[in-house]
This record gives sequence, C-alpha cells and structure tokens, in this order.
Amino acid sequence: MIPKIAQFLRDHVPATPCLVLDVDRVEENYRRLKDALPLARVYYAVKANPAAPILSRLTGLDSSFDAASWEEIEACLAAGARPDAISYGNTIKKVAAIKAAHEAGVTMFAFDSEPELLKIAKHAPGARVYCRILVENKGAEWPLSRKFGCELEMARELMVKARELGLDPYGISFHVGSQQTSTAAYEGAIARVAMLFTDLKEAGVKLRMVNLGGGYPVRYRQEVPGIDDFGTAIMGAMTRHFGNDLPEMLIEPGRFLVGDAGVVSAEVVLVSRKGKDDPVRWVYLDIGRFGGLAETEGEAIKYTFRTPHDGGSDGPVTIAGPTCDSTDTLYEKSNYRLPLALDCGDRVELLSTGAYVTSYASQAFNGFRPLAEHYI
Amino acid sequence: MIPKIAQFLRDHVPATPCLVLDVDRVEENYRRLKDALPLARVYYAVKANPAAPILSRLTGLDSSFDAASWEEIEACLAAGARPDAISYGNTIKKVAAIKAAHEAGVTMFAFDSEPELLKIAKHAPGARVYCRILVENKGAEWPLSRKFGCELEMARELMVKARELGLDPYGISFHVGSQQTSTAAYEGAIARVAMLFTDLKEAGVKLRMVNLGGGYPVRYRQEVPGIDDFGTAIMGAMTRHFGNDLPEMLIEPGRFLVGDAGVVSAEVVLVSRKGKDDPVRWVYLDIGRFGGLAETEGEAIKYTFRTPHDGGSDGPVTIAGPTCDSTDTLYEKSNYRLPLALDCGDRVELLSTGAYVTSYASQAFNGFRPLAEHYI
Repeated sequence: MIPKIAQFLRDHVPATPCLVLDVDRVEENYRRLKDALPLARVYYAVKANPAAPILSRLTGLDSSFDAASWEEIEACLAAGARPDAISYGNTIKKVAAIKAAHEAGVTMFAFDSEPELLKIAKHAPGARVYCRILVENKGAEWPLSRKFGCELEMARELMVKARELGLDPYGISFHVGSQQTSTAAYEGAIARVAMLFTDLKEAGVKLRMVNLGGGYPVRYRQEVPGIDDFGTAIMGAMTRHFGNDLPEMLIEPGRFLVGDAGVVSAEVVLVSRKGKDDPVRWVYLDIGRFGGLAETEGEAIKYTFRTPHDGGSDGPVTIAGPTCDSTDTLYEKSNYRLPLALDCGDRVELLSTGAYVTSYASQAFNGFRPLAEHYI
Repeated sequence: MIPKIAQFLRDHVPATPCLVLDVDRVEENYRRLKDALPLARVYYAVKANPAAPILSRLTGLDSSFDAASWEEIEACLAAGARPDAISYGNTIKKVAAIKAAHEAGVTMFAFDSEPELLKIAKHAPGARVYCRILVENKGAEWPLSRKFGCELEMARELMVKARELGLDPYGISFHVGSQQTSTAAYEGAIARVAMLFTDLKEAGVKLRMVNLGGGYPVRYRQEVPGIDDFGTAIMGAMTRHFGNDLPEMLIEPGRFLVGDAGVVSAEVVLVSRKGKDDPVRWVYLDIGRFGGLAETEGEAIKYTFRTPHDGGSDGPVTIAGPTCDSTDTLYEKSNYRLPLALDCGDRVELLSTGAYVTSYASQAFNGFRPLAEHYI
C-alpha cells in the first residue's frame, strides 16, 4: 500500500466504506506514461474517476481529457481544462449535449455511425471528428464487445462523408478493451487503422490522427506487462505501418492513471458459515458490487485485500457485499483466501481501487449511501 | 400502460430518463395481495422502491415493512411507520445499525449465523429473531444463491441458542428467489420450515412465525401465474404441513407491489448499424444498466417497450445504454424487435419498471445523473 495512504488511514481512521486516493501517484503515473510514449498526447478518460482534485492536477500537467458526457466536459472545464483539450469521446451523444459542447468550445468529437455524424455536422459544424472502428479485444479482462465502433468499410465511407458535411476528418480511434494484458492487441488494431489511412488518402482524405484508446492494465492479483512494454509494442507497430509519416497519436488512459493510486477502506460486517462443517467462510463487507465494486461482475477484476491479520493462517472464503441481493457477491470462484482470525468489525483495504469505483456506486441501493472520497 | 401514467407523460413531457409511478396502483396491488393471502401480514420490501410517497401510502394501509438497512428504517419511520411494524430483514448488519434500530423501537431482526445472533443479543436484547434458511430457488428469474440463509441443522441449533441468549425465538424465514414464476417453489420450502418447527418444539422452543419472503412475480414479456395461484399454493402447503396449528405468516413483497406501477420514460439517443448490411440495429437509450436497469444483467429481467411507432414494421435490435461501457448493454440475445421507424430523439417507455430501478442507479457513472422520479 502507498505509505501516504497507510498513514492517512492510521491518522484519520475515516468512516467506511471510503476511497483514499493519492493524487501524487496520479502525477507519477502520468509521467511514467509520457516517458513510455513520448509522442502520444494523453487524454485522461474522465469516467475512470471524475474527482476534481484529479482533474485539476492533470490540468496542471497539461493533460488533455476524454469526456463521456456533457457533465464530464463541465467537470473538466471547472477544473481549468481548455475546451480544445477536451475530446467528446462517447459515440452516443444527445443533440443537446453536442450543442452544449460546441458552444463551450469543444472541437473534437467521436462517432461510429452515420446518424451520429449527421448530428455532429449539424450541431458542431466544422468540428474535428474521428471514427471509432471495431477491433479484437482478445486479452482484455474487461472486453468491450461490439457496442462501440463500426466496420472498416463503413468507417471509410463515413470519413469521406464527414468531409462532404463540412467537418474536419481528423482520425481513427479504436479500443483494445479495458485492463488489456496483451501488448499484441495493438499490432492488429494499428494495422487496420493504417489500411484506412491509405484507402482514405486515395479517396483524397488525409487523416492526421490515431487515437489508440485506453486499456493499459494495472496490477491486481496477477502481474501484467509494464507500460514500457506497451510503449515499445505500440511504437513498433506505428513505425512498421506508418514509416516516417507518423500521424498524431492520442491515448486515453483511465485505469492506468488512477487505478493504483486509490485504496478502498472497508469494514467486515460479518464472517459466517452456512453449515457448521462448511470449510468456506462467507465474509461480508460494507461495500459490494452496488457500492462501487461493479467491476467484480463475473469476477472480472480481482482486487487484492489487506487485513489486520495478514500472515496468520488463512482459509477459503466467499466475499460479498452488504445488500440483500445475492448478485452482490464479489468473489465466489476465484479462490480467495483470508485469515482465519478475520472478524466482524475488522477494517480491510482493497488495493488499486482508484478507478471505476466511486462513479459506479449506486445512489442508495438498500439505503446505503455511496462511499466517501478522500483525495490526499 | 396505466392510463394515468400515459396522461402524465402526455401532459408534462418530463425530461428523460425518469420514472413515473402510480401510487394508486401500489394500493391496488396491496389489496390484491391481501385478498389472495388474507392470513399473511405484508412486510413491504423497501429496497424495491424506497420513495416516500410509496411508504406513506402503505403506512396508511396498515402495511408493515421489511428494511435492509438503518437508512431504510429511518425512511419508514419518517413515513409514519410504527417501529414494531418494521422488520430488520438483512442478515448482515453493522453493530451500530442494530443499536440504532433497537433504540428506535424496532423489535424484529433476521439472522442466519451465530455471529449475527450474538450481535443482536448484545445490542438488541430481548428482540424477536427469525432465522433464514437456505431453500431451492428453482424457477426464479433472479435467483438468490447461497448468500443468505443457513442449513437446517444450524438453524435448529441457533434458535435454541437464541433462547439461551435471552432473545425471543420467533420464527423462520426463507426466500424462493425474486421474480419466482413457479408456485411449486413454496411447497419444498414450507416443508423444510415445518420440520424445523417440529424439531424445535421437541427441544422446547415453540416458534410462532413463518416468513414466506418475497419473490411474487410481475408480468414482463412472459405471462406469469397470478397472485391467487401463489396464495392457493402457499395456503395449501401451510395447511398440509401445519394442520390447524397455523403459525403467523409474513410475506415480503417488493416487486409485486411496485413493479407494474411504474414506467421509465427514456429517449432514443442513437439508432445505428455496425456495417452497412448488418441486419441488427443498435438502439442506444439515455438509460442503461448503470442508470438503474441493473436487473437486465445477464438479460434476466426482460422489460416491455412502447414506442411512438408501434404497429409499423419492425426488425431485430440490440438495446444498450448511453455509457462508454459495453457491459451497459441491455438486450443482445433476447430477440428484441423494435420498429424500423424508430429514430434518435424518439421517446420510448419501459413498462413495469417500478421496482429495483431508482435505487440501483449509479450516482454519476460517465457523468450521468440518476433518473428523475415522479410519483402520481
């Protein structure tokens, strides 16, 4: 655990559940990412954690921002971001939101369909647009299915159309899936983008930007490749496919910047067994899937736990949240073990929970309020 | 759609997404349930929808309440409920919450483990307690796994222990799973409870109450048995197993009381295809899984849609929410069809969405605020 967070928890013993996040670590992560991919411009994926202290710190570092909604754009502007440093990256936008963003000075918009392109042309005339294409998500622990992106052929036609509509056909984006643990995922995606660049150049449309998306992984229970490995793989593929004519490169890290900067502090509400001789204990925490740990769905993201009894003998456990909903069970099949001494009232920490926790939290499921947030 | 709700939507055209709920329908459902099971006392499962207008109306009807947390107990008290009409039905409770409930006059508590029983004995001395047992959830569309309840043998020992601890060993509860579509589910569960009653009587502990839980289904896309069928099945099983010595009966309906009383009004944000010849359109709404439609996880609960183009030709669709998360997809495999004329900006209604929507809604995922609520 980050020493500063451990110290905060010792000194303040904040009410649980809560998130404690070290904003300095976010800055370190930003610098590490810039070192690994110096040619890429960083657009922080605000959805990972939209807290003002994070947005302000990143603004100070000259980061750009990837916003999913008008409300996220507002949060970036409030934190001091310049409108032209904000990309409206959601391919699904209400007309009113496009208008508001355009009027606020946002100039870059994502799309993946003709109807969306028409909306942008009408309500954000002249904007820079980029088309999201479908790519493989193999290797991602939180894959992104077909919800976003379109086929290559459609992307080609839509970029031609963008120019006809008076828009600036700026570039192509893709997303290899969140918590992507395979550096190879970028090779195939970049190859597809390069084909599009070539095809469109022949059609007289000169694209200038590749948006490499996010997906850079954080270490949870398993080791993952380092960010330098991703940097090397990406730059290798980019030079292989684009040669000396490298386009602008954008990346949209979310989890990578804030994930390992945060710790959720929780309380054990109950430790029980279903039958006297049941070897598996049920450990119920005061935070669960509906309190913000949404990424434990299907046991996809496997957080690491710290307890006051670490090092003592342990045994198998099922770990669940506090609500009267049995889908509010975090880990039943992932072979978690926790100390036998663990008891009701103990405080436990869930490491690397800085991303995708606070914003997922339900407003009041079972009456439980969202977790508190401490940015230090 | 309930005419009163249709009228409200026409007259007010409220901003989307929102829930419009007819409180009179809740009262009708309450009365239908009382007619079907006149001997049972109704404990409304507050978690299904904790809105004050619902709690107040039910208080006026002399309903009791099943609360999952201290916050839900506070909401019931604020709505005028008597503390002794509130059951603290969550088997996972913080010590501070047990204390608060006890001090507020709540006298009935659920448990399913020894540690929880000890907490109740210490912090709510003399309370009426009931033990939740594990039963089959076959036939439930939202089954409840093993998170709640214990084995019969453990329940027997714990009820004996409850008496030793100075508590009032009041009864036994079970839950056949939510949206339970099989009336047969109650037969096996009641048989297990009756065995426990007999065993415990021999041990000198005379139980007085059976809590039959909730689970009574609402019609979504498929027909379900009527509440009278459940009443008949339950009373048949009760008299078969208890004869003339019927214990008090409690039921904990949530969905049944509020589900069909509510309609979510949403806006179509985008209708698109992934490739030009793709037969399936993607329809993106301004509400999704993280905006409150959490029960569409695994496409478990299948809502019915109304659109302005109903009756025209239709085609296959995938239906998704507005966030940049591809798990925010509602229906991809359930063979939904929607009109071909459906377009961006159209308003659609999701029927029977009065239960388990508002409280699940995330506080701000992707920056989107929780849906508005209108109780009429």
